[in-house]
Amino acid sequence: MAGIADELVERTARFVREQVIPLEQDARWGAHGPSSELVEELRAAARRAGLVAPHLAQEDRPALSMRDMAEVFRAAGYSPLGPVALNIAAPDEGNMHLLERVANDEQKAQLLGPLASGEARSVFLMTEPDNGAGSDPSLLRTRAEPVQGGWRITGRKWLITGAVGARFAIIMATTEAGATMFLSKMERPEIVIERVLDTLDSALPGGHAVVSLHDLYIADSDVLGEVGQGLRYAQVRLAPARLTHCMRWTGAARRAHDVAARYACERMAFGKQLIDHEGVGFMLADNLIDLKSAELLTDWCADILDAGGRGSQESSMAKVAVSEALYRVADRCVQILGGLGVTRDTIVERVFRELRAFRIYDGPSEVHRWSIANKIKRDVAAGG
Amino acid sequence: MAGIADELVERTARFVREQVIPLEQDARWGAHGPSSELVEELRAAARRAGLVAPHLAQEDRPALSMRDMAEVFRAAGYSPLGPVALNIAAPDEGNMHLLERVANDEQKAQLLGPLASGEARSVFLMTEPDNGAGSDPSLLRTRAEPVQGGWRITGRKWLITGAVGARFAIIMATTEAGATMFLSKMERPEIVIERVLDTLDSALPGGHAVVSLHDLYIADSDVLGEVGQGLRYAQVRLAPARLTHCMRWTGAARRAHDVAARYACERMAFGKQLIDHEGVGFMLADNLIDLKSAELLTDWCADILDAGGRGSQESSMAKVAVSEALYRVADRCVQILGGLGVTRDTIVERVFRELRAFRIYDGPSEVHRWSIANKIKRDVAAGG
Amino acid sequence: MAGIADELVERTARFVREQVIPLEQDARWGAHGPSSELVEELRAAARRAGLVAPHLAQEDRPALSMRDMAEVFRAAGYSPLGPVALNIAAPDEGNMHLLERVANDEQKAQLLGPLASGEARSVFLMTEPDNGAGSDPSLLRTRAEPVQGGWRITGRKWLITGAVGARFAIIMATTEAGATMFLSKMERPEIVIERVLDTLDSALPGGHAVVSLHDLYIADSDVLGEVGQGLRYAQVRLAPARLTHCMRWTGAARRAHDVAARYACERMAFGKQLIDHEGVGFMLADNLIDLKSAELLTDWCADILDAGGRGSQESSMAKVAVSEALYRVADRCVQILGGLGVTRDTIVERVFRELRAFRIYDGPSEVHRWSIANKIKRDVAAGG
Amino acid sequence: MAGIADELVERTARFVREQVIPLEQDARWGAHGPSSELVEELRAAARRAGLVAPHLAQEDRPALSMRDMAEVFRAAGYSPLGPVALNIAAPDEGNMHLLERVANDEQKAQLLGPLASGEARSVFLMTEPDNGAGSDPSLLRTRAEPVQGGWRITGRKWLITGAVGARFAIIMATTEAGATMFLSKMERPEIVIERVLDTLDSALPGGHAVVSLHDLYIADSDVLGEVGQGLRYAQVRLAPARLTHCMRWTGAARRAHDVAARYACERMAFGKQLIDHEGVGFMLADNLIDLKSAELLTDWCADILDAGGRGSQESSMAKVAVSEALYRVADRCVQILGGLGVTRDTIVERVFRELRAFRIYDGPSEVHRWSIANKIKRDVAAGG
Repeated sequence: MAGIADELVERTARFVREQVIPLEQDARWGAHGPSSELVEELRAAARRAGLVAPHLAQEDRPALSMRDMAEVFRAAGYSPLGPVALNIAAPDEGNMHLLERVANDEQKAQLLGPLASGEARSVFLMTEPDNGAGSDPSLLRTRAEPVQGGWRITGRKWLITGAVGARFAIIMATTEAGATMFLSKMERPEIVIERVLDTLDSALPGGHAVVSLHDLYIADSDVLGEVGQGLRYAQVRLAPARLTHCMRWTGAARRAHDVAARYACERMAFGKQLIDHEGVGFMLADNLIDLKSAELLTDWCADILDAGGRGSQESSMAKVAVSEALYRVADRCVQILGGLGVTRDTIVERVFRELRAFRIYDGPSEVHRWSIANKIKRDVAAGG
Repeated sequence: MAGIADELVERTARFVREQVIPLEQDARWGAHGPSSELVEELRAAARRAGLVAPHLAQEDRPALSMRDMAEVFRAAGYSPLGPVALNIAAPDEGNMHLLERVANDEQKAQLLGPLASGEARSVFLMTEPDNGAGSDPSLLRTRAEPVQGGWRITGRKWLITGAVGARFAIIMATTEAGATMFLSKMERPEIVIERVLDTLDSALPGGHAVVSLHDLYIADSDVLGEVGQGLRYAQVRLAPARLTHCMRWTGAARRAHDVAARYACERMAFGKQLIDHEGVGFMLADNLIDLKSAELLTDWCADILDAGGRGSQESSMAKVAVSEALYRVADRCVQILGGLGVTRDTIVERVFRELRAFRIYDGPSEVHRWSIANKIKRDVAAGG
Repeated sequence: MAGIADELVERTARFVREQVIPLEQDARWGAHGPSSELVEELRAAARRAGLVAPHLAQEDRPALSMRDMAEVFRAAGYSPLGPVALNIAAPDEGNMHLLERVANDEQKAQLLGPLASGEARSVFLMTEPDNGAGSDPSLLRTRAEPVQGGWRITGRKWLITGAVGARFAIIMATTEAGATMFLSKMERPEIVIERVLDTLDSALPGGHAVVSLHDLYIADSDVLGEVGQGLRYAQVRLAPARLTHCMRWTGAARRAHDVAARYACERMAFGKQLIDHEGVGFMLADNLIDLKSAELLTDWCADILDAGGRGSQESSMAKVAVSEALYRVADRCVQILGGLGVTRDTIVERVFRELRAFRIYDGPSEVHRWSIANKIKRDVAAGG
Repeated sequence: MAGIADELVERTARFVREQVIPLEQDARWGAHGPSSELVEELRAAARRAGLVAPHLAQEDRPALSMRDMAEVFRAAGYSPLGPVALNIAAPDEGNMHLLERVANDEQKAQLLGPLASGEARSVFLMTEPDNGAGSDPSLLRTRAEPVQGGWRITGRKWLITGAVGARFAIIMATTEAGATMFLSKMERPEIVIERVLDTLDSALPGGHAVVSLHDLYIADSDVLGEVGQGLRYAQVRLAPARLTHCMRWTGAARRAHDVAARYACERMAFGKQLIDHEGVGFMLADNLIDLKSAELLTDWCADILDAGGRGSQESSMAKVAVSEALYRVADRCVQILGGLGVTRDTIVERVFRELRAFRIYDGPSEVHRWSIANKIKRDVAAGG
């Protein structure tokens, strides 16, 4: 597969450089993400380039391994709009992964096609406001009551990425038998997008919304997998989703570094180029180290998943280390650019804000550290 | 003065709590700062409360010492809109300070009244794009050519805080005799606000703009101070301006901490309150330490300025340490709030963005460290 | 008192420079601290200089305030041997403080004289091995059983500073009524110094030992204070003891900085003085900031104690922040000195090791952060 | 080779566990390293286990690749005495590497045998005191003057690892043609070991000494390689030597982590196991991340060297990142152990001191960051 991946990486890199980056200053990229129109324009370009959801199985080749995905996704992430263009962004990419593993044939037939082609977008309705489910999924408050032939769901969700404009939803709700996943189309009167939140990050279409569910009826045939297995399925989605975040954002951080490195070689201050000031040069050196470490940890964890491992602890380790390393990179780039760094005249400002959010999305560092520590405890108890 | 300061601090704190904070979610506070209308509303409230520019000499008392200002400004900064309301925000506060020390009587009579009352706003046209003046003011590219009875200025400035809506400008430009400061009203066809930059921070009215000067005629009577003394005057403005930044933003960081501390006492996760997780509690503990250190360093430097010192090294030390400490506080608060922290549903998101910018405004940390190191070198050479 | 303190500080600084520093390379300063002989030599010099226990009340003046002590102790700490010379080192300094507040007149008459004059040394037998008392004093395992006319104590203590050569001991042991403090002379067959530990730090006479108590009889008249009040008395000792640690070690870190700054101005590398490399200059700048912050936090807390406050939270804040700041200073100094820094050819190597230990002695940072967080929680609950 | 390496790793791990670790508390391991006798005892054990210099070519297999060495050296480094036992410690391991690449057949015949068998030790006389060669090798002050049939060398070297007890020396000195390497036996009256330095680290036999050369005559046949090529040869030695440091010390840091993790699972404080305190558990989690990152960076760089790359920038990146990551691990372990951590009752105290020195040995972090930054500058200039 190395040949295929290399070629894909090269094509992806060129596509991002030539077709995505020029659209980064487009006014349609607003505070709540790129507009539907801009997304469509980006995806049309990706279609022409044969780069829509390139990690999935194609007619002439199987799906990419996680390790190969890592290379391609990093190339795509070199622009924060790249993953959206290629249809490999959250939450769709993770939702496709989940559906492939858990949905039945009928559900797959109905949902995976439009998702994979980038024609439709989807949402994952899990996190909740008001002391509900967040890092601790056991706090789930949205309830699904059994009714004739199905379920009736009521609750409120928030930080729902991409709700505006999404066609399908995967909904997590509690039942007597435990957390359960349900499928629904979004355009129903019982699903209300209350508001779109203003957030630090702004790369994903539709932004992050508050969504309430009012007596939403779901037929038994629209249960995803088995009743009561929701938390287990969430785990299925989790480790790879964390890792694809790491991949995409490593690309973005690398971009910020390249912008800062070029600036440091051009900008003069106090009689020499910025990069010749150790205060700046050392930051760039640390960037390279952090970027390489991020890449190595991601690839290490990808190999484990490719070998069939669950990668639970490993993906926690990668998530903490990569998100924090990339954030340091972005932070240093802002600092190197000085006044320019706090403006949106370069992409660095957006990357910085994305990466601040990454330290929280998919589990804040603290939750991962806690679960790694628990694993250490179990290992010591087992004589490790 | 302690009695006066204590009373002022208490009144300021109450004013911010009761009249400013309720306006923080007002839609007129946009990406480029609060609108003129919102500013006017805030200032009208401050006028009613007798809290406009309270640090200046009043009929019944002299101006506040820097040390007393520190207390009042911290109280005002508890909302990012507080300093604007009280008319003690950058750049006006620093401009008033400069004019009081350098302007002649006629200039003072004309400018200081409307500035002090909060009726007019002013700008400081110093920093430049395209490898011009920034942290290194010797790179100044805007030129003032002598003409009959005055000067003709051409150049481009950027990151000019508050340009939109400002009435007066202090312009720094080079002459044969060196950098020089000039005064002008803003409403002139030769002064063009090219665009307002999108920036991380958003607390100051008018945002930060690119401003170009096209053959702008300035009469000799509108030179501020002496020709060729511009860099020296900039120093006059600098140390206190740095320190008032420290004061205001310490208030903002304290606010973020209070929000996060309350949240940590309410939010449950994994069977206990967030604050009972050491991962969170330790962050709050570090916040207290950083906030106290920031306060002590600011007060120490204020005492030096009050005693007549130039405080050049000391204000550099305070600026680096305080901006970095407060940033850590804000960053931890975002992290503690988790998903909520990346949204604008609390003020923490704005404070975080302000404080990221503070590590760059008024000289990035690196420039200050460099100048502190130079001082150490001189001290060692002097046998220190 | 300012005049007295200033003069004392100046005299102390001169004494350390002229009489203590020259003895730092003396071979009698070994891995377990300076030998008794060297201590005696240092103290004799201090006696001649009128600088033994200068913080205590003297014939012509009262005891120093904590704030004045801060200045004097910092000056003394400029050499790691300075506090030993002046008889203001741990544990004697803290023991004197405790005895003054808790001992009865008879006990004071017997113990305080020889301690204050530096003729005798004392130990504080509190911490224990094998899951006994440490940061968590409630784990105390040494037991005192009531017997006719007194108590019989059995247990094992460790990390007992200064045991070898000490004349008196304050012993903490549990009784039915709770932890209790007992007084004893050290030279008794029931008290066995099992071994002296090899430790990172090496500034205190006698090092740190393991001491076992075998059926040690203590008469009722040798109970210190009241039975069952031991933990409360430990608190009396704690806050000031933490703070005097901060004072002394700030002097040591300042010394390391001075050594490193001079070296950086002399040593050439890659075509210029080390200090002109920003990588080095910035470290020195950060040193100055850390040293000043340490000083300000210590003084702030000293003022609170002088005003009669318990300073429990404040001394925890100071202890964490000061120990970590000073450690960073020492670590940077080692780094600046390069190969020289890892050798004992300068005092920096010893200071580094002392300061690593300081992050643990008198409560590791983690315990203090935990107690600060608890205080934040109580404050929020109280509506703070 | 995977099979061979796996078996070697397993055997090495067992050997260290069963034969080396029990000797760690041996009194013959002093401040200047293990005594000759202890070294001989360790090596005899390694000989019996067939584990002397296992990375070199053996009768039945070629030399290990760097990547395989990484695994074996990490297993050996699990005790700080392991590399000495296996004869893969600095400076011998690097000297052997250098001799293999640069020495002529006669020199090899004479030197490599006794070195490889662990019968003799060698030194590398490069670094100098008094503003001589250190991180900046161009400052070399030791001079070699051409004389009849050879050279006469005079100068002073310091931080010469293993001088006491070494049989051979590689000496770097300047000639008209540039820096040159010379070979000599150590036992000559013109070579004087002035003193052994007291240093933070203590794992290497012979410690670190000051060595002076007085008119030392070296025959032309004892020039190593070509005259004037000394700096180039030093580079040959450098990248792999840095990397083997990384390998060995990763083992040591892993050991410290294992000790701390076990302690954290046994020690109770404040009502629960230490590891259940997040303040401790998070440190252990960060250890795992740092250890894994260190391993991945080392292996990445090893692969580059195995593929024939010079690995100059990559080994600088690895050296900085690995030394700092491992140091953080050791520092956290000391902190987790609390009072126990500052004593030599566990190996952690020694590992901490070794790792502090590692941040300086083979080029302090600052020198590596500087050279990485220079590479970034060249890459940007090349259009990268």
